[in-house]
Amino acid sequence: MTEAGKGQARIQIEEPTLQTIRAPISEAFERFQDRLDEAFLCDVHLVGAVGAHLHRAFGKRFRPTLVLLTAQACGTVSEETILGAVVVELIHTATLIHDDSVDKSLVRRGLPTVNSAWNNDVAILMGDYLYSKAFSILVRNRMYDAMDLLAEATHRMSQGELRQIEQKNRLDLSEAAYMRVIEEKTACLMSAGCELGAQTAGASVEERRALGRFGRSVGLAFQITDDLFDYLGAENVMGKAMGSDLDGGKVTLPLIDALRNAPETARRDMAEMIRNREFRNGHWPDVVRFVTEHGGVHYSEARSTELADHAEAELAIVPDTAARAALADAVRYAVTRCR
Amino acid sequence: MTEAGKGQARIQIEEPTLQTIRAPISEAFERFQDRLDEAFLCDVHLVGAVGAHLHRAFGKRFRPTLVLLTAQACGTVSEETILGAVVVELIHTATLIHDDSVDKSLVRRGLPTVNSAWNNDVAILMGDYLYSKAFSILVRNRMYDAMDLLAEATHRMSQGELRQIEQKNRLDLSEAAYMRVIEEKTACLMSAGCELGAQTAGASVEERRALGRFGRSVGLAFQITDDLFDYLGAENVMGKAMGSDLDGGKVTLPLIDALRNAPETARRDMAEMIRNREFRNGHWPDVVRFVTEHGGVHYSEARSTELADHAEAELAIVPDTAARAALADAVRYAVTRCR
Repeated sequence: MTEAGKGQARIQIEEPTLQTIRAPISEAFERFQDRLDEAFLCDVHLVGAVGAHLHRAFGKRFRPTLVLLTAQACGTVSEETILGAVVVELIHTATLIHDDSVDKSLVRRGLPTVNSAWNNDVAILMGDYLYSKAFSILVRNRMYDAMDLLAEATHRMSQGELRQIEQKNRLDLSEAAYMRVIEEKTACLMSAGCELGAQTAGASVEERRALGRFGRSVGLAFQITDDLFDYLGAENVMGKAMGSDLDGGKVTLPLIDALRNAPETARRDMAEMIRNREFRNGHWPDVVRFVTEHGGVHYSEARSTELADHAEAELAIVPDTAARAALADAVRYAVTRCR
Repeated sequence: MTEAGKGQARIQIEEPTLQTIRAPISEAFERFQDRLDEAFLCDVHLVGAVGAHLHRAFGKRFRPTLVLLTAQACGTVSEETILGAVVVELIHTATLIHDDSVDKSLVRRGLPTVNSAWNNDVAILMGDYLYSKAFSILVRNRMYDAMDLLAEATHRMSQGELRQIEQKNRLDLSEAAYMRVIEEKTACLMSAGCELGAQTAGASVEERRALGRFGRSVGLAFQITDDLFDYLGAENVMGKAMGSDLDGGKVTLPLIDALRNAPETARRDMAEMIRNREFRNGHWPDVVRFVTEHGGVHYSEARSTELADHAEAELAIVPDTAARAALADAVRYAVTRCR
């Protein structure tokens, strides 16, 4: 991508779809899907039933796409790459199931969550099943390098989730504190997944590290974009209602930035309105207006664009191939997918 | 122990306490406790707070005691043994926290559960924190043999938990189906822990396998005893109300055996009473009488005694030391601790 193609201009270009992004690894992706289905083969009937439901509910497979593409960009996709992609997706799915249970979310991507289609008990135990299945796959295939990356990433994710609970409803949350949580919650698994993809393709330490940084930046940009959608409204794409982050006490970048930019009185009034949960009673458009007028939307877009640029710059370490171009498209997808 | 000391006579002998059982490894146990405390050092305040609560609520440390004693019985306790004991206790604690949340238990060992002292969200995320901390410790210390054992055990535990949900309220549950669940839920972690203890002490494959079988039998005997207490009543020791298993839909060995022994009419009446949850309204003594009169208590005691004998027989593979004697005491503790 030329200099002119970066930044603002990105939004004008035709947006990449996951299908076009996956073109260089389409065959590997089929193998990944088959292997993922196998993870739900279990003589406990409930596992298959939840698996069939998840198959419809979680369709993006963005993380395994990154794993497969980074491997392809560094050489070729191996059997270990496929398994690594499966494991990353299992860990991600386990996290989503537990998250939905914690957030009491009823819908994800337009379909009932596990806690609503079944109950919290099944959500807790099914999440545990998927986490432990992921590590069991790594152990059975003696993938100890992958284990190093993913055990650490999973632990950081759990810390991020707890930190988020601790920071609930804190309107004085700093940008640094916010960034730390999204680094743990979202970026570290994408980072580990990209490093894993590189590692399974026999990449050098430098390539692995660069692609790890690539995954981290993509993850941060991805999460900022996600949090922005909660204000800009993309219910049809996200499959959840606008304002649900704030309703759940999650203070995210658009609001953090608007609160620090707004004049004292406006800031106090908004804080008061949020504390009283008035946005539930027809005042949500006021919150959106506040966040937009005081620069929170613009700032969040600029931050995610900047991170996307960082990500793209890391790709210079691998040869110019279709896989590398697809990784660049994946970055664009992360920041534009629902705008 | 002589032949006369086995079986019925066991109850007459002075019961071993955890303190006497731990005498041969008292110094190692102190190191274990320190290392366990370190697992709760985290800049997320909530982790320390829950950790301090758990420190008071979960006092037995039976599983790490087995890990340390098996290592001592096979040679000596190493740094890896201590870490293995910590990891086993972390996995066990994570399971208890998730279990209590699933069962909506309010009290464990006389103190509020995490889901009742905090809420279900904290219980879910704290369980995830401890699971992932356990695997992170193994990875950081490059304990891949331990990882093999524990990843598999953790996955089997999660299958057992899901199977138990699937079998809820099934009064036609077979003894084999019951045994399978307790093997997964309880025995496989004790088995992995004992094999791990042996492995960290440099034991032979034969010793490791024998001690794995030892741990499995202890685990089965331990769980049957636990399930029996739900009928015999040991609220002061267990810290939970009698009948809570049945109330939660858990059909266990004493009832399974009584239902298959009772005459048709008595069996039908009892099944009807249980289905209508009449035991909640003053009819609990009728259930206890049914289970006792139709042999369920006696049969469960006989089964746990038989398994304890199997466990003890496996100890012949290691030299006759204080650690081996303590392991034999641990078996007795597992089947008599609250009678």
